[in-house]
Amino acid sequence: MLKEAIYHRPKNNWSYAYDLETIHVRIRTKRNDVDRIMLIFGDKYNWHAIGHQELAMKVFASDELFDYWQAEVKPTFRRLKYGFKLQSGKESIWMNEQGFHDEEPANIYLYFEYPFLNPADVFSPPAWVKDAVFYQIFPERFANGDPSIDPGNAEPWGGEPTTSNFFGGDLQGVIDNLDHIEKLGINAIYFNPLFEAPTNHKYDTIDYLKIDPQFGTNAKMKELVEACHARGIKVLLDAVFNHSGNRFPPFLDVKEKGAASKYSEWFHVKDFPIEVKDGIPTYDAFAFEPHMPKLNTENAEVQAYLLEVARYWIEEIGVDGWRLDVANEVDHRFWRKFRDVVKKANPDAYILGEIWHDSQPWLGGDQFDAVMNYPLTEAMLDYAVRGTRDGKQFADLAGYLLAAYPQQATEAAFNLLGSHDTPRLLTLSKGDKRRMKLATAIQFTLAGTPCIYYGDEVGLSGGQDPGCRKCMEWDESKQDRELFDFFATLVKLRRDHRALRDGTFELQYAEPGSKLLAYAREAEGERFLVILNAGKRKATATVPAEKDSSVPIIALGDGDIALKGHKLRVSLPPLSYAIVKLV
Amino acid sequence: MLKEAIYHRPKNNWSYAYDLETIHVRIRTKRNDVDRIMLIFGDKYNWHAIGHQELAMKVFASDELFDYWQAEVKPTFRRLKYGFKLQSGKESIWMNEQGFHDEEPANIYLYFEYPFLNPADVFSPPAWVKDAVFYQIFPERFANGDPSIDPGNAEPWGGEPTTSNFFGGDLQGVIDNLDHIEKLGINAIYFNPLFEAPTNHKYDTIDYLKIDPQFGTNAKMKELVEACHARGIKVLLDAVFNHSGNRFPPFLDVKEKGAASKYSEWFHVKDFPIEVKDGIPTYDAFAFEPHMPKLNTENAEVQAYLLEVARYWIEEIGVDGWRLDVANEVDHRFWRKFRDVVKKANPDAYILGEIWHDSQPWLGGDQFDAVMNYPLTEAMLDYAVRGTRDGKQFADLAGYLLAAYPQQATEAAFNLLGSHDTPRLLTLSKGDKRRMKLATAIQFTLAGTPCIYYGDEVGLSGGQDPGCRKCMEWDESKQDRELFDFFATLVKLRRDHRALRDGTFELQYAEPGSKLLAYAREAEGERFLVILNAGKRKATATVPAEKDSSVPIIALGDGDIALKGHKLRVSLPPLSYAIVKLV
Repeated sequence: MLKEAIYHRPKNNWSYAYDLETIHVRIRTKRNDVDRIMLIFGDKYNWHAIGHQELAMKVFASDELFDYWQAEVKPTFRRLKYGFKLQSGKESIWMNEQGFHDEEPANIYLYFEYPFLNPADVFSPPAWVKDAVFYQIFPERFANGDPSIDPGNAEPWGGEPTTSNFFGGDLQGVIDNLDHIEKLGINAIYFNPLFEAPTNHKYDTIDYLKIDPQFGTNAKMKELVEACHARGIKVLLDAVFNHSGNRFPPFLDVKEKGAASKYSEWFHVKDFPIEVKDGIPTYDAFAFEPHMPKLNTENAEVQAYLLEVARYWIEEIGVDGWRLDVANEVDHRFWRKFRDVVKKANPDAYILGEIWHDSQPWLGGDQFDAVMNYPLTEAMLDYAVRGTRDGKQFADLAGYLLAAYPQQATEAAFNLLGSHDTPRLLTLSKGDKRRMKLATAIQFTLAGTPCIYYGDEVGLSGGQDPGCRKCMEWDESKQDRELFDFFATLVKLRRDHRALRDGTFELQYAEPGSKLLAYAREAEGERFLVILNAGKRKATATVPAEKDSSVPIIALGDGDIALKGHKLRVSLPPLSYAIVKLV
Repeated sequence: MLKEAIYHRPKNNWSYAYDLETIHVRIRTKRNDVDRIMLIFGDKYNWHAIGHQELAMKVFASDELFDYWQAEVKPTFRRLKYGFKLQSGKESIWMNEQGFHDEEPANIYLYFEYPFLNPADVFSPPAWVKDAVFYQIFPERFANGDPSIDPGNAEPWGGEPTTSNFFGGDLQGVIDNLDHIEKLGINAIYFNPLFEAPTNHKYDTIDYLKIDPQFGTNAKMKELVEACHARGIKVLLDAVFNHSGNRFPPFLDVKEKGAASKYSEWFHVKDFPIEVKDGIPTYDAFAFEPHMPKLNTENAEVQAYLLEVARYWIEEIGVDGWRLDVANEVDHRFWRKFRDVVKKANPDAYILGEIWHDSQPWLGGDQFDAVMNYPLTEAMLDYAVRGTRDGKQFADLAGYLLAAYPQQATEAAFNLLGSHDTPRLLTLSKGDKRRMKLATAIQFTLAGTPCIYYGDEVGLSGGQDPGCRKCMEWDESKQDRELFDFFATLVKLRRDHRALRDGTFELQYAEPGSKLLAYAREAEGERFLVILNAGKRKATATVPAEKDSSVPIIALGDGDIALKGHKLRVSLPPLSYAIVKLV
């Protein structure tokens, strides 16, 4: 056994409370190197008298280099002492906090500990999140329901989007089109910023407590939230707390009065007066954008202001959570306070961080409920759309991500294939709907909350911003209704079957060089097999089906299936998928 | 290069802010497997224009299986994007967040990130801690300064300690003997619990806001703190917040009134009435001790009470910090609030957690400043006292610990060789002072704050509790004054030379099977070589000395030294050490 590959360190994603009584323990080994691992565990204060036990661990994920094993324990006294016994052929080694041993260590004090399962520390995303299907709306471009509040320079609906033009999208437009959203099967909307701001994207806030007048009023927003709730749709707002806009009154005051401003500590000003030298502001900003000054979230007044914002929209207007813009550049201390305020206002509110990178430091239960799962986005696109990753490479990254976070983080992850920050899926697919559907079929059959970017469901195209921020197409004759039906069917399939949401995940087929991929998901006595062919030729996969007594049916997708003994043979056309219901 | 051995994951001990402008980045490789690692880094928003750089990383620690590399960066805009280039012979591989690559990855978005260095998240233990030398006092057994407040059943000073007897030690006794402590060179005292409690160890608190009447009064405590401060000595109290005693009034109330008690939520009661069935209390306790009911630190009233305790002793009485008993069984959320209260009362207060195991989850800057470094204790004892670990095995564990935490945690770690919970050092050494000195010489020449357990410095002996809690010996003719001089000299040496406190650490000699060990420490132009022989025979080590121009002198210890060219030859008697000042 390759000792250098074996990894376990208590807490984080390696030992954590899954719920109020369950602890998950994980360990990593070199791929295909270890036959069997026993978790040796017991009560830390009564190892000998109450007795310790052994439990076989299972490989629950693998990536290119490693296997990841997990065992689930419900310790009577909510505390755990544990170690590992690893076996390969006739070789056995034991691992405790001091490393590896050729015999079972006699000194139990050197075993690992999960000291105590305190409820306050349990990472508990809201239960509704793993059952949600999100729809992302870029408000200026979704629908114009009230032309009377259009910006003066609004252009006719459907024109070419630029970084600075306006078309008059507003809240009334959303209210008017909730039928469309409901028909799609959506039960949660994520809105890009709605607060008063000069730009069309509104990421440069002027007033965090006011709906932009071009979108409507706070009262209109409350009407929208109530209309959504009446249809069972949750509402998530965009919290741009990393930076304000440069017309935010406190910033204007600092600009005018310099160090004498009573808001001088609200920002990170290096040199007064505020200015931009050689493209670099004399204050911290988002990137180097002078019109997006970074807020000093360590300042007590800034905290009080932003936390009141967090509370207000939940308690007074009824929204169901926040998506946090540039979340990883704001201090952890602020986010912990933010979580306290949000969860006090509504324990079921959802906190979603925008983080494009490894997100472990924010997913310990004290800060976010989930992050936007961009690493999975890239893997899905590489496999299904770009063709740059084979089935094995996709499975390796998906396996890595499964193991990188606590299970509840995976279940609540926000899985997207595109957004206002990326080219649209259809455009990335070069117009080939088969690739688009392939990617979406994966997105909707993995754990985590899928999100549809407005318009993707009717065939909107568009490259990188501003192209991806086109006006929504409301002329049904110009909508791709076949695509809409595909999306609606897929959404319904996921919502109807828990197996596709938080069911178990078993990789069934992934080989180097092959564009075939298959995995099974199971829950509540239902089992699905998802088979994908990202190759340009017809392909056939044979996967185990020993658990299946009835005749399998293709719930969605194409292909021929044949059950032969304990094997299922599936032939798929090029660039296609089949979601097969097995029992 | 063995890819399975290579490890880096952002934050924790792998990339962290060392101070307000410095980020440390670390990576692990198989031991002796990689020749050179370059850290490739730049600003995340201006990689190309401002330019990225490469910096050679250095091996700063090694253990049995791995080398640990570090580089230090001060990014202009407090944010970092980075990756690694690893070289061995002619082979080069690059590592980013997606794994390993044979060529430099073109997509910089897949590099690792340190998103932003926010001051609020910087882990900053008080600066005084790394310069402190602690002395631990078990109050009932240190000195009886006021017989008028002795417990009625107090026995004559110096009798055999049992788990339940009393000898009358008190605060006046400490005040009367500060000369002894000061002569030893101590500048900080850690007191075992002082608050009202029935037992002699006082870990079963009745009143957290009151000095036990057998020890004195709150006013006397203030007098003691002021007397200490006048001598430049800090005072650390024991916070037993995991559990109260069973005579704590809220617990008595729950015992009497059951679920109807207004304190019913102050504890974790599983079944009313409170009782003990087959040795197991019907409420959570410390271990299974019925007289130590676990406090519900998630309850707002309990929090308010304990946080007021935390504040009171710092603000009103002037103590300099808290040592947290059974710290890892209390919820993280409580400790975060505790830190806020303590640091608000005194930003320079020290928070020290009692954790015997891996302590990473508490050493991120949001909870503790340091932990009691028991893993190092065991390594020092194994090497110097028990003879069960050779020099290489000691160095491996010390190297592992160096790499396991941020540098500031190592600098503030509480390094002890014994306490009220373990047999005394002299007893573990079977009365052989050479072994005792050997262990202490290591303790005082490593980073971290050393602590002397009261009486060790004059030759007190004693096995596991209650033996290790003997009365202090105040009859000078019965004290081991030679030992006292050794301790006083060693304390002075450490306090006089920063190199021995937070200087760099370089392992110079550690070979399998050999009981010889040598390491160098350097700061402010001063360099020390510490050479230890834990073997029973005379031994000679030759270590590099290329930096040394002057004649080396033995600052403390025994041995013969000879400088030959760029080599220093040191011969040590059995079970001895030499602390050599090189420049």
